[in-house]
Amino acid sequence: MAPYTNLDKQPAFTQLQSLATTAPDLSTPDFLTALRLQEYHAHSAGFDLFFATQRLDETILASLQELADQSKVIEQFLALKKGAVMNRIEGWDCENRKVLHTACRDIFSKNPHNPEASKQAKAELKKLAAFLMELDQGTLTNDQGSPFTDMIQIGIGGSDLGPRALYHAMAAYGRGGRKIHFISNVDPDDGLAILSRLDLSRTLVNVVSKSGTTLETLTNEELAKAAYLKKGLDPARHFVAVTGQGSPMDDPHKYLRSFYMFDYIGGRYSATSMVGGVMLGFALGDENFREILRGAHDMDQAAEEPNIRNNVPLLMALTGIWNHNFLGHETLAVLPYSQGLIRFTAHLQQCDMESNGKSCNRQGEFVSYQTGPVLWGEPGTNGQHAFYQLIHQGTAIIPVEFIGFRTNQYDGDITIKKTTSQEKLTANLLAQSLALASGQHSANPNRFFGGNRPNSILMADRLTPYSMGALLALYEAKIVFQGFLWNVNSFDQEGVQLGKILATRLLDHMAAQKEDESYDGSSTDALGWALMKATGLTKK
Amino acid sequence: MAPYTNLDKQPAFTQLQSLATTAPDLSTPDFLTALRLQEYHAHSAGFDLFFATQRLDETILASLQELADQSKVIEQFLALKKGAVMNRIEGWDCENRKVLHTACRDIFSKNPHNPEASKQAKAELKKLAAFLMELDQGTLTNDQGSPFTDMIQIGIGGSDLGPRALYHAMAAYGRGGRKIHFISNVDPDDGLAILSRLDLSRTLVNVVSKSGTTLETLTNEELAKAAYLKKGLDPARHFVAVTGQGSPMDDPHKYLRSFYMFDYIGGRYSATSMVGGVMLGFALGDENFREILRGAHDMDQAAEEPNIRNNVPLLMALTGIWNHNFLGHETLAVLPYSQGLIRFTAHLQQCDMESNGKSCNRQGEFVSYQTGPVLWGEPGTNGQHAFYQLIHQGTAIIPVEFIGFRTNQYDGDITIKKTTSQEKLTANLLAQSLALASGQHSANPNRFFGGNRPNSILMADRLTPYSMGALLALYEAKIVFQGFLWNVNSFDQEGVQLGKILATRLLDHMAAQKEDESYDGSSTDALGWALMKATGLTKK
Repeated sequence: MAPYTNLDKQPAFTQLQSLATTAPDLSTPDFLTALRLQEYHAHSAGFDLFFATQRLDETILASLQELADQSKVIEQFLALKKGAVMNRIEGWDCENRKVLHTACRDIFSKNPHNPEASKQAKAELKKLAAFLMELDQGTLTNDQGSPFTDMIQIGIGGSDLGPRALYHAMAAYGRGGRKIHFISNVDPDDGLAILSRLDLSRTLVNVVSKSGTTLETLTNEELAKAAYLKKGLDPARHFVAVTGQGSPMDDPHKYLRSFYMFDYIGGRYSATSMVGGVMLGFALGDENFREILRGAHDMDQAAEEPNIRNNVPLLMALTGIWNHNFLGHETLAVLPYSQGLIRFTAHLQQCDMESNGKSCNRQGEFVSYQTGPVLWGEPGTNGQHAFYQLIHQGTAIIPVEFIGFRTNQYDGDITIKKTTSQEKLTANLLAQSLALASGQHSANPNRFFGGNRPNSILMADRLTPYSMGALLALYEAKIVFQGFLWNVNSFDQEGVQLGKILATRLLDHMAAQKEDESYDGSSTDALGWALMKATGLTKK
Repeated sequence: MAPYTNLDKQPAFTQLQSLATTAPDLSTPDFLTALRLQEYHAHSAGFDLFFATQRLDETILASLQELADQSKVIEQFLALKKGAVMNRIEGWDCENRKVLHTACRDIFSKNPHNPEASKQAKAELKKLAAFLMELDQGTLTNDQGSPFTDMIQIGIGGSDLGPRALYHAMAAYGRGGRKIHFISNVDPDDGLAILSRLDLSRTLVNVVSKSGTTLETLTNEELAKAAYLKKGLDPARHFVAVTGQGSPMDDPHKYLRSFYMFDYIGGRYSATSMVGGVMLGFALGDENFREILRGAHDMDQAAEEPNIRNNVPLLMALTGIWNHNFLGHETLAVLPYSQGLIRFTAHLQQCDMESNGKSCNRQGEFVSYQTGPVLWGEPGTNGQHAFYQLIHQGTAIIPVEFIGFRTNQYDGDITIKKTTSQEKLTANLLAQSLALASGQHSANPNRFFGGNRPNSILMADRLTPYSMGALLALYEAKIVFQGFLWNVNSFDQEGVQLGKILATRLLDHMAAQKEDESYDGSSTDALGWALMKATGLTKK
């Protein structure tokens, strides 16, 4: 493959810069037409993307296609799937790893892109199925012979956000009685609140850490162990591990079962590995977890399509870059009209911002353009009664990605004033998209809506395990494509290291001052010690 | 009072613009000193603000003080408290209301700023105390004589976000067994999931809507009523109302009790009125709710201090404007190091962005500077494993407001590797602040941290009802001060109206096509109907 190229070195870049100066104004009368709404539509793996309300036209779309082609994004995506060492910075010390999260779900065909990784994924799935079978059949119970009803997932970052988002989204498909709880924060109040209200004798604990050394996770594991011991329960009969093979946590004496995660899957891309699998399998059953994988795999395949009009993740990636780098909008709101997706945006914050919140390219040079945007959002219609005021009338333009479903999950919807709640929900979604684009003139300046605020609608029939898997993979692919276009390494996270180092230094002070009341850290760490002193955290 | 003036018309504005070109660089060696960390410290009502890691110096602070004085923010704040009609746009049709949320908690002195409003607040508090007494003493029970154990709060926007944030923050102070659940979204899955898993016979429902006409709330009330009727339970024996006097919901035949909210309190500022009071009183007891009010009141008083070095909310308001309007940073991350504050940022998103996401000033003229920023965040240390990568190494600068507490809420913290979880939490907080400011040089560009990323730390001893009230009022005052400085009306929300109008039109189509299969909405609403058709929501 040719060497990776910066966004601003692609021929299409200057073309797009020039097109941005005359980008269509969505609020122009008669610009939005029935025909445009119908034609600006793409489809991938059960999801429709409606993008008529983006500031795009045929010329700009053609130029974005050229940008994608010049950047060789599909070629890079295929290389990634096959096992290229994509997690690296040329010429510099770095992680140097393959990036194979797609292999977790590349288990449905005879010719997976990377046979070795898919084989490992299948082996773990088989172990999981056996574990779930034992739980279902009652051959694996607690010491009193009662079935396990609850599971606590202890993990942080990728071992928490993706799994948690999926669990909330899939709660409607849960197997009666089985519930998941999450402990992530090192704040003791997070764990203590949960441990104090559960019947631990019927609760499994799933400890998730690839390295087996994550500070927060190990600490919370100990907090949980202490709670089990206090109740006279043996942690080794309740605790399960998801970790790297050979990590300090890979120890059959300490865990009921160990499932493996591999170093070619980054935390924020790991929801479809055992990181999400053990917990989702417990809550939803093996079949439903496999449906999630099937949806993700179908989207992974759809994302191989070179024509951007037939590739939703790629079209969203390019539209995002159009809004961010060419129209100059700094943030992105993702607004799902589905209560099930209440934590999906929090997952995306990690997946997107930790992947592409970078300043140096894959050759170790600082880039001179903006990379990953600030991504934020809450479900509609809740958001409409919260921050939409700013999106409609604020001084900054906030591009929006709406997500919706034609039908809801639970039975029991009711008709009030001739429409169901689900109809009210989707009507609001469509209305917001049009309102942001069209705006509304008014003599009263306080009731004036400028419009021309770009947005798109992503829609599927229903939030099911299959569509949840597809949605997860859609955003993963979008993020990976944007990383290719910006020429950044979307798979490491060196930016989190400095805080860890400084925190360790402060913890050393805290430990030292307990042992020696006259301890003074100012000579070794003037600033850290001074900040501890100023904030009242030193003993003297 | 003199007429309100735009930010860019204040003499201090040009001075600050010029100071911004030479603003101090926090990453300059020896710029951050122990002395600076100690001296850049303010205190109000139990909260310390450490702002050494903002790009401020004595000259800039003096200029910000001048800006505050020239904008007469304290004078306006006092006028607001006394009952000036602050919710208005001069010369234009608008809400024309007083803004008296501070009166809800101005109940501790003999001379409240607005005696009439404080009297009304006290009357509602008395009704609430009587209601809670009946529940406690068992004179008010369900039809079987059993006590109520749960409450569902049905409300949206201000009737949901503030109360929900406070409930999560105060769960540690809950009265054994009493739990609150929330239904807000018109998505039927929100309500159905909750209604299906509760013992409704022991559950109260608190319906909150000032107008008594909020679409989402009325719909969810009907959804809840249907669930009660299905179980053979009489809603009138379970449902409580918080609404405006004389609203359609003010009906003793339909509700066990009605509590009043007044039109001089905006939804997003209403958490300390009965909107939060009924639910918090049920969960925490009357005493704890009054402690929240006491904390809020103390902060309201502290916010009257004209010297910005002694007024935390005002100093934070000015620092926010310095970062946003002068240094050009578009967003603001609020990152609480406390799991209890998990929904506090979502509350702030409404309170801040709905208040100040405006483009026209209080004289009805469009302003030519940026107003309210995009505010976002999740609790640390979770966020550290999610989006902090972008905050440390991304191409955009994200100002940060950290919030922390010296001690945690629950008993049972444990020591691992010589430090407690709470120590690990606070060490991480302090470390992040220093890391963002100082940065770190490295030959490896991927391990280079530019630093100079402005942030501050807000710290109190513990998250208690008192400090929660103070924190709530702190941000309310900060937001109000910023509105004064930007010269916008922080108390209306005209920007939410257009979406409502368009949604109603779409709902009419949805209703009509059910009654008449040949219905075609294209003649009356070409775009709306076309979008319904494109997204597959028309019948034909």
